[in-house]
Amino acid sequence: MAEKITPREKDYSEWYNDLVKEAQLAEHSAVKGCMVIRPLGYAIWEFMQADLDRRFKETGHVNAYFPLFVPKSFLSKEAAHVEGFAKECAVVTHYRLKNDPNGKGVIVDPDAKLDEELIIRPTSETIIWNTYRNWIQSYRDLPLLINQWANVVRWEMRTRLFLRTTEFLWQEGHTAHATKQEAEEETKRMLDVYADFAEKVLCIPVIKGIKTANERFAGAEETYCIEAMMQDGKALQAGTSHFLGQNFAKAFDVTFLDKTGTREHVWATSWGVSTRLIGALIMAHSDDDGLILPPAVAPTQVVVVPIYRKDEELEKINAVVHDFVAKLKGSGIRVKYDDDDTKKPGWKFAEHELKGVPLRIAIGPRDLENGTVEIAFRDTKMKQVVGIDGLAEKIPALLEQIQQGIYLKALKFREEHTFNADTWEEFTSILDKGGFILAHWDGTSETELKIKEETKATIRCIPLNAPNEEGKCIYSGKPSIRRVIFAKAY
Amino acid sequence: MAEKITPREKDYSEWYNDLVKEAQLAEHSAVKGCMVIRPLGYAIWEFMQADLDRRFKETGHVNAYFPLFVPKSFLSKEAAHVEGFAKECAVVTHYRLKNDPNGKGVIVDPDAKLDEELIIRPTSETIIWNTYRNWIQSYRDLPLLINQWANVVRWEMRTRLFLRTTEFLWQEGHTAHATKQEAEEETKRMLDVYADFAEKVLCIPVIKGIKTANERFAGAEETYCIEAMMQDGKALQAGTSHFLGQNFAKAFDVTFLDKTGTREHVWATSWGVSTRLIGALIMAHSDDDGLILPPAVAPTQVVVVPIYRKDEELEKINAVVHDFVAKLKGSGIRVKYDDDDTKKPGWKFAEHELKGVPLRIAIGPRDLENGTVEIAFRDTKMKQVVGIDGLAEKIPALLEQIQQGIYLKALKFREEHTFNADTWEEFTSILDKGGFILAHWDGTSETELKIKEETKATIRCIPLNAPNEEGKCIYSGKPSIRRVIFAKAY
Repeated sequence: MAEKITPREKDYSEWYNDLVKEAQLAEHSAVKGCMVIRPLGYAIWEFMQADLDRRFKETGHVNAYFPLFVPKSFLSKEAAHVEGFAKECAVVTHYRLKNDPNGKGVIVDPDAKLDEELIIRPTSETIIWNTYRNWIQSYRDLPLLINQWANVVRWEMRTRLFLRTTEFLWQEGHTAHATKQEAEEETKRMLDVYADFAEKVLCIPVIKGIKTANERFAGAEETYCIEAMMQDGKALQAGTSHFLGQNFAKAFDVTFLDKTGTREHVWATSWGVSTRLIGALIMAHSDDDGLILPPAVAPTQVVVVPIYRKDEELEKINAVVHDFVAKLKGSGIRVKYDDDDTKKPGWKFAEHELKGVPLRIAIGPRDLENGTVEIAFRDTKMKQVVGIDGLAEKIPALLEQIQQGIYLKALKFREEHTFNADTWEEFTSILDKGGFILAHWDGTSETELKIKEETKATIRCIPLNAPNEEGKCIYSGKPSIRRVIFAKAY
Repeated sequence: MAEKITPREKDYSEWYNDLVKEAQLAEHSAVKGCMVIRPLGYAIWEFMQADLDRRFKETGHVNAYFPLFVPKSFLSKEAAHVEGFAKECAVVTHYRLKNDPNGKGVIVDPDAKLDEELIIRPTSETIIWNTYRNWIQSYRDLPLLINQWANVVRWEMRTRLFLRTTEFLWQEGHTAHATKQEAEEETKRMLDVYADFAEKVLCIPVIKGIKTANERFAGAEETYCIEAMMQDGKALQAGTSHFLGQNFAKAFDVTFLDKTGTREHVWATSWGVSTRLIGALIMAHSDDDGLILPPAVAPTQVVVVPIYRKDEELEKINAVVHDFVAKLKGSGIRVKYDDDDTKKPGWKFAEHELKGVPLRIAIGPRDLENGTVEIAFRDTKMKQVVGIDGLAEKIPALLEQIQQGIYLKALKFREEHTFNADTWEEFTSILDKGGFILAHWDGTSETELKIKEETKATIRCIPLNAPNEEGKCIYSGKPSIRRVIFAKAY
């Protein structure tokens, strides 16, 4: 277990790979670049889904489902879009296999070639906007606020579990509006939903901002994002919300009659988060002993471990634990009583630490005599002996305290690793240590790309809350009106 | 709306197509054979998913996610399996597009050809059992009880929305066991879960049975099924649960050390239901005015419609309805107050009937004076004027009564359309009218296929509860020991 996990100090990247494997969150599949999400990893995703889905519905969205396949010709209809996605598309060309005439298994049947190849959706703007054309006639049909939970495929050459895989799971919202203003408001509303979710549920502090033209979604007019800091000081884009203008409406000829009877093109947004967030969650909080999970997304929030030598001792413990566990379940706590008699307590402690159970409660014969238990906090490693009387009632508050603590720790880390740089020397020396750098930039793609080429750092975003401040670009020396965030990124 | 729906008597098949379209449940997409599931259709699916998922978890299963792609060679490993699925496989051969050198959009990049083609999963036994090989070493790793919610693709030449589409959504359970007996028990347990779900939640009475060898899942030793009757007397297979024996364990070399230290192959099951159930739900209950939904899966269970001419009247109605709706929401009822002032009550009534809202409550100025409302039941078309005092408290019981009523009506229909046939003449004349036929069969595939050829009727199942009864096969006259169910089927 923990001894199989490379320490973060030694090799952060190996630490991540080891943790994902040892905690049984996910693994590589037989198909290059695709992952198997194991039950623990998937359970975390289910809690994320449930919370996000509730937020989407509270903001007026409904779910629907659009096809996996996109006709090749659809992709070409929006010029920037095809440019952005064509190079990573899985292409279906045939619809049948047949027995190999040479007797070796099956081969693709050459007679079953498709007239037009189908792309596995890398994102669904094209197929959805082609559908919206028939759904939207008048301003009365707007806004159209639809979300889809789906798998998508982007052929990746270099993959990492959760962070970058050929197939991944996500949600993609696609909305249609009568006015530019309404679409812009929607774009920002969903960015706020993502930011609140990341901070309150995943305990990951994020910076809301706007992407530069280089980093914009292919087909968007403006891409908003939330950027998070991992424990190695690198940035991770945790969610994006795009204002698409009328680009897709024009490409797919989606128009409506407004209140004055004038025909106009529809305004659009799209926004998404993916199973990548599981990677972010791991990298933001976990330690060398394994996973650290915020209680809000922990499949098991509390584990109770009995400590005993004799069966009579276990029976007495069982009696006490039974009531305690029933109370917790009654108040909606996800609790597990680990009374597996084939494993020793020490093994169980390590196992539940590895799997990120936020709160562990151990109870032995001496505890029974004293009316106490030992509680151990996964995040801080703090242990405490406390009375069992009234403890069940205190658990929700303890979990809330853990949730807060994990967030504050991550926030403190980010603050300690965010720096201003005013010269190129400062900039490059900070980059070596890792972290976010607030620096002036002249606003040109040329400078941005040169900085990326020389240092691998990219502009993560132009923060929404960045104050106006006159300065000089750290690279070109040209004038700048505000600082942007640079970092190396996942 | 309703006038656009062909009556069932006139053309049952057109009635179904019209209803799916007019009630905005689903539509054909630009990709042949694939459907778009519209928000109302998808919301019904979400309620089905939530209920099934709870049942799976209560029976000890966990969710996971396996890749969309299956390497072509995997399919060939289980002989019957590849035979069953090869002819309907979507095949990915390339992983990149490039600009057409002739300047016409994009083309498939011939340099990006895969070494081994990938099949879009038609079902996931092969990719999952290839993964299980590494997860299972000892009896301690068993049973493995995993479910997956996913999309699958089976290339269909003749498609119908929900009932038969190239891509569909489903869940597929895949379990691994140490003994044959345990796997058989699991197969039957999940069949029971499906049957209970179909009857209690979807109000569709089902017959549990075993498929004949002809109709067995490709790769299974035994296929259990639930069969439902539609309003045209045809059968619809609503769910299947397969005992896979050791077939996939042997094909993928999945073994374990049992308690005695002997290495054995693992025993397997798989089971699934799909978005086809939405089609079953529609066909089992709906009428010429539109959808009839059991309250358990109705996205809106109660709609309240104000009847008024003047704004003052509406204000008074609003005041009363506000409290009423709040009470219903408080007790978890999905209620909508349809106070849209751009539509007339008559239009709204027809709309909510079309969309299958189980209970409609209308309230006008005279009702206010009398302290009454008019409630209308979607399933029976019954209307009733009742006092509003205490009505909110009665709504849950009314919904339960509707749920029961829909089930009993479908049960009565099935009973009235189930017949014994003892001669070939009886058999064929009943078939013309439609319904289930209980008849003797000699147990051979030959006879089964001949009957199918001559009448299009298939053996839906050998019912689990069929009593032993000696008789003669209606086709061959050979001896038979029990009756099986014949019907034409979707």
